[in-house]
This record gives sequence, C-alpha cells and structure tokens, in this order.
Amino acid sequence: MRIYLDCIPCFIRQSLEAARHATDDERVHEQVIRGVLDLSKDLDMRQSPPVIGQQIHRLIRERVGMNDPYHGVKQRFNDMALKLYSPMRHIIIESEDPLETAVRLAIAGNIIDFGVKSELKETELEETINQCLSGTLSGGQIGAFRHALNAADEILYLADNAGEIVFDRLLIEQLPIDKITVAVKGSPVINDATMEDAVHAGLPKIVTVIDNGSDAPGTILPSCSRSFREYFNKADLVIAKGQGNYETLSDVNKNIFFLLKAKCPVIARDIGCMIGDMVLQKTNACKGEEQNARI
Amino acid sequence: MRIYLDCIPCFIRQSLEAARHATDDERVHEQVIRGVLDLSKDLDMRQSPPVIGQQIHRLIRERVGMNDPYHGVKQRFNDMALKLYSPMRHIIIESEDPLETAVRLAIAGNIIDFGVKSELKETELEETINQCLSGTLSGGQIGAFRHALNAADEILYLADNAGEIVFDRLLIEQLPIDKITVAVKGSPVINDATMEDAVHAGLPKIVTVIDNGSDAPGTILPSCSRSFREYFNKADLVIAKGQGNYETLSDVNKNIFFLLKAKCPVIARDIGCMIGDMVLQKTNACKGEEQNARI
Repeated sequence: MRIYLDCIPCFIRQSLEAARHATDDERVHEQVIRGVLDLSKDLDMRQSPPVIGQQIHRLIRERVGMNDPYHGVKQRFNDMALKLYSPMRHIIIESEDPLETAVRLAIAGNIIDFGVKSELKETELEETINQCLSGTLSGGQIGAFRHALNAADEILYLADNAGEIVFDRLLIEQLPIDKITVAVKGSPVINDATMEDAVHAGLPKIVTVIDNGSDAPGTILPSCSRSFREYFNKADLVIAKGQGNYETLSDVNKNIFFLLKAKCPVIARDIGCMIGDMVLQKTNACKGEEQNARI
Repeated sequence: MRIYLDCIPCFIRQSLEAARHATDDERVHEQVIRGVLDLSKDLDMRQSPPVIGQQIHRLIRERVGMNDPYHGVKQRFNDMALKLYSPMRHIIIESEDPLETAVRLAIAGNIIDFGVKSELKETELEETINQCLSGTLSGGQIGAFRHALNAADEILYLADNAGEIVFDRLLIEQLPIDKITVAVKGSPVINDATMEDAVHAGLPKIVTVIDNGSDAPGTILPSCSRSFREYFNKADLVIAKGQGNYETLSDVNKNIFFLLKAKCPVIARDIGCMIGDMVLQKTNACKGEEQNARI
C-alpha cells in the first residue's frame, strides 16, 4: 500500500506522541517534529507508510538517545496478555471451531498498537476480546484460510506487536505447528515484538522463531536480512499480522493472509472494510503459487 | 498565543481539507501539502498560529488559482443564519437579560468555523444555539463586560466568520450602537467574513463597517492596514470574536474581551477552559487603560 496524503498529518501527530512518550524534553519534541517535517516534504508517495515510519523512529531514538523507548510498555503489555492467556486458551479449546476462535483472538490482540493509539487500558483490551469473539469476521475467508493451512508445506507467521504476540501464540497452537516459523522484528521500533518478546510469550519453546533483521514497523523486504528473505521465499504461505505488515506486503506477489484489526481510515479504505473491522483476508496481489515473489 | 507543537499536525490536516475543498485535483492537494511541510519545517514557534494560517491559505489560493474557494460556503452559511435571525432576535428581546442572551447567541455562531471543522449541518448549528442558551458561560465575566461597554467611548468589534456575522449583528443591536465600529477581513481567507458578508448580514445599515486590509485568519496587527490600526488604537474597548482573534490578540496589551466557542484543545488549554466551552473573557494581557498598546 502506498502513502496517501492523509498519512502525512498522521505521521506528524504520531511522531509527536512518540517523542513525548520517549522524553519530557520539549526541545527534543521540537527537534523530532522539525526532522519529520523535513523528511516528509520530499517524500516518495509510492513507498509504503512504514518506510517513513522506520525513518521517523530512527530519528526519535537518535534524538532521545534511547535504543528502545517502548521497552517498559512492551513488558507491561506482554504481562497483561499473559494474564489472559489461560482463560483465552480455555475459550478456544471449548469452542465449536477452535481455529476460528483463535483467529478472532489473534485479531483482537492487534488492538495493542502504539503506532495508532498511544494508550490502551486493560478494560479496552478485554472489551475488544469480547467484541472479536462475537463480531463479524470481515472477508469471510476462514474456509480459504483453513484450506491454505492444509495445503502449505512451509508457513511463515509474521508477528506484529509485543503483548499481541501472546495472542499469536494462541493461534499458532491451533496451526500445523511443525510447518510454522515465526518472525519478529530485528530490533526495537515502537512496540513491535522483538526476540525478547517472543521469549517472554514462550514461543521458542513450541516453534522456530527468527528475527527479520529490520527495524521497520512492518516487513519492508529490502530492509530485512538475507536469511529472513530466504525464509520468506521458501514459505508457500505467509500469515501477516497487523497494519504495518499489510501496508508493506499488500502489493507483494505471494500467498499471504492478512490478519488485523482495521484501526486507520486509510487502511480500511484500501482493504475495502470499515474502521474497527476484524480482517482475515487473502492478498489480492497473489498471481498464483507458481509465480510467488522472489526477492 | 504562540504556536504549540500540537498545532503542526493540525496545520497539515487543515491544509489538506482546505485543498480538497478547493479542487478535486490530487496533484494540487499534493503540491499544497508539500508546500505546507516546507513552510512548517523552519517555523518560528513564537508567532501566533494564524501567521502560518495566512501563508497556508495564500499558498492554496495560488495553487488552486481561485481568489475565494469558500465563496459558495460563505453564502450558504449567511443564508442559513439569516433564516434564524428573526427567531433569534425574538428570543433575545423576550429574554430576561437581552445582552447576556445576545452574547450567548454570538458565541453559538462561532461554531461556523471552517478552519476547525470543514462540515457543519444546519441541525448542528441549531443544537449549538440551544446548548449556548442554557449552558454555562465560562469565565463569568458578563458583569465586567457590561461595565466595559458602559465605560467605553469607542468600541471596535472584530468579526470572525461568514454566517457567524449574522449572530454578531444580533449582539451588536444590543450594544451602544453609536460607539461601535465593526471590522471584517480585507480579503478572503477560509470562511472569514469580508465586506460582502457584512453587507449580506445587513450590518452597514446599522453601524460603521470597515475592513482590516489583511488576509490573515485572525488579527495580525502588522499585517493590517494603517487605517485599521488607527481604529484599533483609538478604540478603548475591543470585542474580538473567535479563535483566530484570540490567537493573534491574546498577548496584545489592550482592553479586549474575547468571545468564542473553544473548539481546539490547544486554545482551550491556553484559555484555561474545556473544549466546547462558551468563553466570554477579558484579556489577561491588559496592563490598564493608560498603557494601551500603540502599534
């Protein structure tokens, strides 16, 4: 998905929120805003929004002098999600269709997104879980997803955020686990999950976990490590969580299912759904398995 | 009031809305956004927000090739307000305190503000009128306002927007009319009232109306004509309508009463009120009548 003009005021607002999250120093806030304005004015609009997101958060970390301003927040959301792990697992196992229930919960976990919303209360998370268990799953592609899982030999699961990764574990436990590799970010950006969060969620005990070598808030393939790209190329099914992965992979010719909660009007319009929708959607960019993208 | 960092994403968003209002040509929208980003990156934050607002709307008019993109909207809101003129006048005359009722209605009219909100329905305007007739008047300075009106010899009334100017007429009719001069903008900017709107509202039939010689969405004194500044200097009371006039005059040492509906969180914080509040407030910058600002 390319950058739309509506993304630009949102970049600036998010940058200010992120800078304020990282430090109370107003001079730094101003430096960040001016830096982002300077980055934005010559923006190549054909890029995906996380390309500028990556640059913005590098700038913030550099100006603030911190490698991981969201470290505390990520721990808090991992802990919050881990408290819910057992009751959610119980809901899945007891449900009529454990796969669909796990998909719904994995999407619910995508509400934990500091790129979109810088504050989230435990009650909001619980409300979202309840909504996602009963609401409509936009796209109605659960059958196609089930078929794709059975047909695939190697599945790459692209995680999104810390906290959310506990919800991903619940879904991964319902998938053909021997086929799965989970990828997290190579280094911190916003509240995106890194290897530390995967370990916190207990994922490496049940599945292979790799990192993508990148600090982009999405999956910008040229920004990822060669080793990650090999996994990506080999996989015959990719499960991509969250808006950042949708934005960066929606035009890639690969067999991808996107799982996300649509939180931004621009992305909702691009997908063709409403804000707040739970989305499980097969990519429109796939030209068939024979022509899978090679990077 | 100076520019706050929160104003910057809002400038960008407003510019995009204004560009979209003026033309469907997406290339022009992009040119406007890039131009505004370029203006913003070297911004002097000590200026008031309408200083950049003036530059942004000049840029939009230049790129779009239209002198008055809001002309149709202004006519529509003048007509909408004129339909309400007689019933509102009746409410004022029949009320226990016609001056206070007229102040409340003049503030209600300030909801017509395309700088803040690019769409407004007739029903929203009517709801705002009802809220303003019964709600709390923030600041509680109606007594001080009444006293200032009696004490003044020359009163300058700074109008704000088209449509709203009909509501201003209702208030002006309750003031000591021989002391009053009304000032409108010198040329079009957003939906700010110009002489054409004052005529549409029937103001020149009852009071002296001048223009301020400026195209700023507020009253930037150095940007106004010498003739306007003479009126400003001579006045011993200024009644300033709307957020733009508050932003540009809140630090000017002059006997000013601000009348507005607080629609923006930054301005509300600066005033010390809540968003949505009706504000009638004497300036804090006034150092006494003997030291009135001379420009």
